[in-house]
Amino acid sequence: MKFTVDQIATILQGTVTGDGSLFITGFDKIEEGKPGSISFLSNPKYESYLYETNATAVIVSKDLALKQAVKTTLICVDDPYVAFTILLQKYQEMTAERETGIQSQSAIAAGVKLGKSIFVGQFAFINSNSSIGDNTSIHDRVSIGKNVHIGENCIIYPGVVIYNDTIIGNHVVIHSNAVIGSDGFGHAPQADGSFKAIPQLGNVVIEDNVSIGANTTIDRATMGSTFIRTGVKIDNLVQIAHNVEIGAHTAIASQVGISGSSKIGEYCLIAGQAGIAGHLVIAPKTIIMGRAGITKSVKLPGQTLGGYPAMNNAEYLKRSALIRRLPELFDQIKNIK
Amino acid sequence: MKFTVDQIATILQGTVTGDGSLFITGFDKIEEGKPGSISFLSNPKYESYLYETNATAVIVSKDLALKQAVKTTLICVDDPYVAFTILLQKYQEMTAERETGIQSQSAIAAGVKLGKSIFVGQFAFINSNSSIGDNTSIHDRVSIGKNVHIGENCIIYPGVVIYNDTIIGNHVVIHSNAVIGSDGFGHAPQADGSFKAIPQLGNVVIEDNVSIGANTTIDRATMGSTFIRTGVKIDNLVQIAHNVEIGAHTAIASQVGISGSSKIGEYCLIAGQAGIAGHLVIAPKTIIMGRAGITKSVKLPGQTLGGYPAMNNAEYLKRSALIRRLPELFDQIKNIK
Amino acid sequence: MKFTVDQIATILQGTVTGDGSLFITGFDKIEEGKPGSISFLSNPKYESYLYETNATAVIVSKDLALKQAVKTTLICVDDPYVAFTILLQKYQEMTAERETGIQSQSAIAAGVKLGKSIFVGQFAFINSNSSIGDNTSIHDRVSIGKNVHIGENCIIYPGVVIYNDTIIGNHVVIHSNAVIGSDGFGHAPQADGSFKAIPQLGNVVIEDNVSIGANTTIDRATMGSTFIRTGVKIDNLVQIAHNVEIGAHTAIASQVGISGSSKIGEYCLIAGQAGIAGHLVIAPKTIIMGRAGITKSVKLPGQTLGGYPAMNNAEYLKRSALIRRLPELFDQIKNIK
Repeated sequence: MKFTVDQIATILQGTVTGDGSLFITGFDKIEEGKPGSISFLSNPKYESYLYETNATAVIVSKDLALKQAVKTTLICVDDPYVAFTILLQKYQEMTAERETGIQSQSAIAAGVKLGKSIFVGQFAFINSNSSIGDNTSIHDRVSIGKNVHIGENCIIYPGVVIYNDTIIGNHVVIHSNAVIGSDGFGHAPQADGSFKAIPQLGNVVIEDNVSIGANTTIDRATMGSTFIRTGVKIDNLVQIAHNVEIGAHTAIASQVGISGSSKIGEYCLIAGQAGIAGHLVIAPKTIIMGRAGITKSVKLPGQTLGGYPAMNNAEYLKRSALIRRLPELFDQIKNIK
Repeated sequence: MKFTVDQIATILQGTVTGDGSLFITGFDKIEEGKPGSISFLSNPKYESYLYETNATAVIVSKDLALKQAVKTTLICVDDPYVAFTILLQKYQEMTAERETGIQSQSAIAAGVKLGKSIFVGQFAFINSNSSIGDNTSIHDRVSIGKNVHIGENCIIYPGVVIYNDTIIGNHVVIHSNAVIGSDGFGHAPQADGSFKAIPQLGNVVIEDNVSIGANTTIDRATMGSTFIRTGVKIDNLVQIAHNVEIGAHTAIASQVGISGSSKIGEYCLIAGQAGIAGHLVIAPKTIIMGRAGITKSVKLPGQTLGGYPAMNNAEYLKRSALIRRLPELFDQIKNIK
Repeated sequence: MKFTVDQIATILQGTVTGDGSLFITGFDKIEEGKPGSISFLSNPKYESYLYETNATAVIVSKDLALKQAVKTTLICVDDPYVAFTILLQKYQEMTAERETGIQSQSAIAAGVKLGKSIFVGQFAFINSNSSIGDNTSIHDRVSIGKNVHIGENCIIYPGVVIYNDTIIGNHVVIHSNAVIGSDGFGHAPQADGSFKAIPQLGNVVIEDNVSIGANTTIDRATMGSTFIRTGVKIDNLVQIAHNVEIGAHTAIASQVGISGSSKIGEYCLIAGQAGIAGHLVIAPKTIIMGRAGITKSVKLPGQTLGGYPAMNNAEYLKRSALIRRLPELFDQIKNIK
């Protein structure tokens, strides 16, 4: 990439303070800025870096009042974070070279429907009665089962396994070694204390614009479908059990576990290592803090929950503070007695 | 599938109330019942669905006293859940078409012993001195190391990796991208603070009727074997460290971690995200609640444990309730003073 | 293996008590010792096994004062654990037969630089502009992206995926189905509540002597690099988010999660299932206990932290003990009132 600061400002509809004729050749975080790179300042607590950075240009808020002189050129915009993200996206679009075609050492069963401009990498296998939509990339060493339907403009990274009967929409990204459609964990206890597997006859349905992280597992339903609705974003190493439904535009961070048959509302945020018990209903716009353990359904939308068993997060933080003061409390009781 | 309600009742040794000549073509959960489908009612708290369902037939307990009229046909049995599970299993047996043969793009080292009616999928690799028992399916993109012995009627799903020297019994199911036999996490600290890997020379032994979930990891022993005993059921993303032994018919839910050399008894239940420290012995029939953290050996069989550090679950719940009342307690102390 | 006890004692610079002419043919834990095997006793709490073991020889401390007669032959050394580890390593070096060569069904893009004595297994794929150093083993079914550089003497186990632009040093071991360089979990919230992916343009840099466990995920940086420094040891199912830095010689146990942009110091120990929030700095030599949740930066080196939110571990254990006494406390208050 090689653009002038002025050219970038034009793309971002920003105004330049300083030398707009300088060339930009890369991106950096502001504290790691190098000559030739562009960075951004969004969080005011990092403002001190602005006066020290070696970046050639920094995207800042047009409302920023400088506290001292800067050596870098500024591009002033409404929202520096959004502007920088747009710049990264433009760069990615310009530089991404999408491969197309079917690599020689892949294997595709007879009768699979292949869209236009698809890519199928080495050692990928697509089983019978499946279909792949236009512009979708099936990278090397992906396994796609029978009766799987994948939409347009999807990216399936190496090592992903998609079991039989899975339905995937458009613009879906699945990262490496994620497993979609493995059997739900259902075993009926027998009279002698052993278990007998309950057949898992359902499937997984993933709607449009979903992103799924590396090594995440999403189990098929016992009957019916496990649903991942439009726009859901799931991080790495997340467990989604059988018959779960994740509502549209919900984001789930790494190592979260969601037990069987729970329904998560739309626009929820679930932070890392949280857990949700089975058969619960979580209201839309619920925010679940890191490590929280949800043991009851959440009816009121928009709450922030923390702790285990989870409660209102402000209440949880108050109790955590009181736990830290327990030694003092025990001392007071002793004195009173 | 197309059977009459009467035919299904005969299979389940149940009695029919209503029109037994109707045709059944699928399964549904009772709340999602559609014309042509059969469902079941086991948990009394869902009884209201029975009066609303559009399912053609519902399997119910012969002891159920109807509170109002039903439009669906009933099949009355001793245990509706067990009956429905049997029905699903019959259906799966009838419809599953097991493939056999060695796919053209697989790779099998010279001298590997292959049983009768096995299946080896595309891009699967079986290394030297290994053996595969009769009727076992090695799906596409499975890696099997050297000196690995797999019994009869096993299903190894795509992407599974089985390291050298692993021994696997009969009727074992391993889901995609699980890893069996990776090195135990053993590193000897050196005088300069760095680590030196301790060779992991043992193996993993998996007995009959074991089921292992997607992306689960089971490490080989440093010396000797990591044992997964008969009938154990393990969910997704579970970590079993080196030299662990899981007792027969124990079930382990998703994201549980069991540290090195711990021995888990028979018939235990370990719920999601629980953790067990190293070098512990857990008595048979112990129930470990979700998120519980076990830090000491458990000697008395049949206990239910919760919390971290784990204690008797009733005690734990009592303390959780008291923690919720801490603000009140601090207020009382203030008043007393 | 077949050596006399005397020969082994010579290797370990130890002295023999008992019959040094006996033959050793294997290794065992002391409690599982069999005729022909050698074991060791390091932890005094297992001393009773020494008097019962059927092992032919046991490596013990030269400072051990026997409490009763032993039937096994003893090799007395300065540090039995270190000596036994050395013995295992010698054995592994003698017996390991490293394969070399490019297997017939692998795929390597034109122009990839291949060092001397490398191994590339079946169905492994190496993409363009990458390089593999001397004596490195790329096992079967590994995916290596574009512009990936792997040093000398590395072992990459089956099913590992290494995304574009990753840099890996020498003597690095990566276990099966680990994913290196997947996209960081960065999604910019839009005005309508949906998310738009932030391009992840950075990479992962792994330095020398690093070991990475099965099914572990390490995300690429948004910009710049996610760094895994020299000598770091990472267990199975660990999540390392984008822009994290793990300091040299730090060890991380299974199921730990480290959130975006956190910097972990050198020589830290992080026990199983711990979690570290984003944008934190953890001082060198910090010990983080199992399940601890770190929510603030740690400035003072060498502390041991436990609990969630984490605090000094001794303080945490004190509070845990007081929580167990809460019922008693509530009773006392009732009595006082």
